[in-house]
Amino acid sequence: MTDTRLDVLAIGNAIVDVIADADDDFLAREGLTKGSMRLIDADEATRLYEHMGSAREISGGSAGNTAAGVAALGARAGFIGQVAPDQLGEFYIHDLRATGVEFTTPPADFGVPTARSMVLVTPDGHRTMNTFLGAAQHLPVRALDEQQIRDAAILYLEGYLWDPETPRYAMIRAIEVARGAGRKVALTLSDTFCIDRHRAGFSQLIDGGKVDILFANEAEIQALAGVPHFETAVQAVQDKVETLVVTRSERGAVAVSGGERAEVPAEPADVVDTTGAGDLFAAGFLAGRAQGRGLEQSLRLGAIVAAEVISHYGARPEADLRALAAERLA
Amino acid sequence: MTDTRLDVLAIGNAIVDVIADADDDFLAREGLTKGSMRLIDADEATRLYEHMGSAREISGGSAGNTAAGVAALGARAGFIGQVAPDQLGEFYIHDLRATGVEFTTPPADFGVPTARSMVLVTPDGHRTMNTFLGAAQHLPVRALDEQQIRDAAILYLEGYLWDPETPRYAMIRAIEVARGAGRKVALTLSDTFCIDRHRAGFSQLIDGGKVDILFANEAEIQALAGVPHFETAVQAVQDKVETLVVTRSERGAVAVSGGERAEVPAEPADVVDTTGAGDLFAAGFLAGRAQGRGLEQSLRLGAIVAAEVISHYGARPEADLRALAAERLA
Repeated sequence: MTDTRLDVLAIGNAIVDVIADADDDFLAREGLTKGSMRLIDADEATRLYEHMGSAREISGGSAGNTAAGVAALGARAGFIGQVAPDQLGEFYIHDLRATGVEFTTPPADFGVPTARSMVLVTPDGHRTMNTFLGAAQHLPVRALDEQQIRDAAILYLEGYLWDPETPRYAMIRAIEVARGAGRKVALTLSDTFCIDRHRAGFSQLIDGGKVDILFANEAEIQALAGVPHFETAVQAVQDKVETLVVTRSERGAVAVSGGERAEVPAEPADVVDTTGAGDLFAAGFLAGRAQGRGLEQSLRLGAIVAAEVISHYGARPEADLRALAAERLA
Repeated sequence: MTDTRLDVLAIGNAIVDVIADADDDFLAREGLTKGSMRLIDADEATRLYEHMGSAREISGGSAGNTAAGVAALGARAGFIGQVAPDQLGEFYIHDLRATGVEFTTPPADFGVPTARSMVLVTPDGHRTMNTFLGAAQHLPVRALDEQQIRDAAILYLEGYLWDPETPRYAMIRAIEVARGAGRKVALTLSDTFCIDRHRAGFSQLIDGGKVDILFANEAEIQALAGVPHFETAVQAVQDKVETLVVTRSERGAVAVSGGERAEVPAEPADVVDTTGAGDLFAAGFLAGRAQGRGLEQSLRLGAIVAAEVISHYGARPEADLRALAAERLA
């Protein structure tokens, strides 16, 4: 195995979050399930946007958030994702690069604009996402820079990317290239509904030994294992991957890797908007491992940066994460 | 004088704020004066944006912020301003309408995109603005709905609009229409550099008795009066307008109207980003007056909503301002 140029190369939907406050009545009137992500078309995007309150636009996308967090922690991150040549696309490219992420996928005009997710934040801080995938769902295999994939220690994939067919093929090809170069593959399950939609595909990847590092939250690991009990679900999955990381919101997180098990509590936070909590947890864990930290210390770094991102609107870190890590991980 | 349909109709630059953190070294390297607003062209906008950190996009524009605040306080607000038919323009229209502001100026393609202001927020909460006026500087006289102007009790003008020639003519025409219908005209001086650029124009308006309500901060009133002393400046200006409102940051605010003088202290706030403080102060004052409050109570409402807007990023209110007003103005 040759030297790597990147610690983490993430592939995901390049999405700008359009974040507005909403109350539970609004979710009920619109028939939305709190805490879920649903895919919507252009007409529904227009309709819902007209009903929503005033918003702020902040670059997002699950794997993009993770890449931004990895870079903000001082590790070497790259991102592959599709934007359109429009204002949202410009914002998206700028924000990742400004964080220090290598992002070279060229914008492309497929006749649809850059993806946006209308994120409705209820007073309890929970987010309900309504995603118009736009250009993101057209990420073609040919947009992959295979040398970049071979140069990255870990290829990190977001489960959401499995939804549209075109980027699913790109993801499958990226896995082949990464594994062919002896690199690790990480996958985040993204959402229980996403697991329901793609159970066969995810099981094939995981049971087929193609995933080295698996990220899930409590509901997702139970959905994947098909059991309504946390420890049983962890035990059912832990031997299928080299490293399993499961986040449990205010109950902290658990990791199992090579026979070792670590647990950490959640870090205290004043919750404003939980968008990006899982993405930044993954960033902290991956950056910790890249920087040679042990399993428990890497989990703690995940918990620290997740606590930062839920204390403000948007899924990109605002604090100086390196300073935060130095202070909290003495 | 017939009945009004709107309490406040604001005319201003329709600008989306692109807000990023920056340190004092960054401002120094870029040769920027902290706390000021400068106009930049497309090339400089691109250059500066490449240097800036990751950002959030939130609708702004001084008079637009004021209109949003007036509507959020339950008074009747309208806005006139020019956006382009692009994503930033869509955001801008959406955010004002979602707040309850009547905004009917059609988007227009003058070959330039919707305006944006790159707002650099230093750790002390101060904002340094770099504004690319884009479509906003093309607001034509023909975009005015003269009936809408006649229907509004107060026409509110932002001083920044005096910078580009085309909207200056629109503003001058709007003043004629408003005064012809017996309506009040309010003006905010916006910025000391703006006063330096347009001293003759502003003096002509104010000395010519065309401004009924004048908003300024301490530096602006001193720049207008040409004296480096607060009370002397207030005395030099107060008789030229029906109502003078001067904000003094952490030292509160003063209003003089028809021989009456009121003063209020600043409301406590944890300062995150001072963008919009003056705009929302004006909103609170104008909404207070529209709702029949006295001079001091209207000033207090201004101070309350200004404190809300500086406690978070962006110049649009996030809290429920009506509830806040009910709670704090017992």
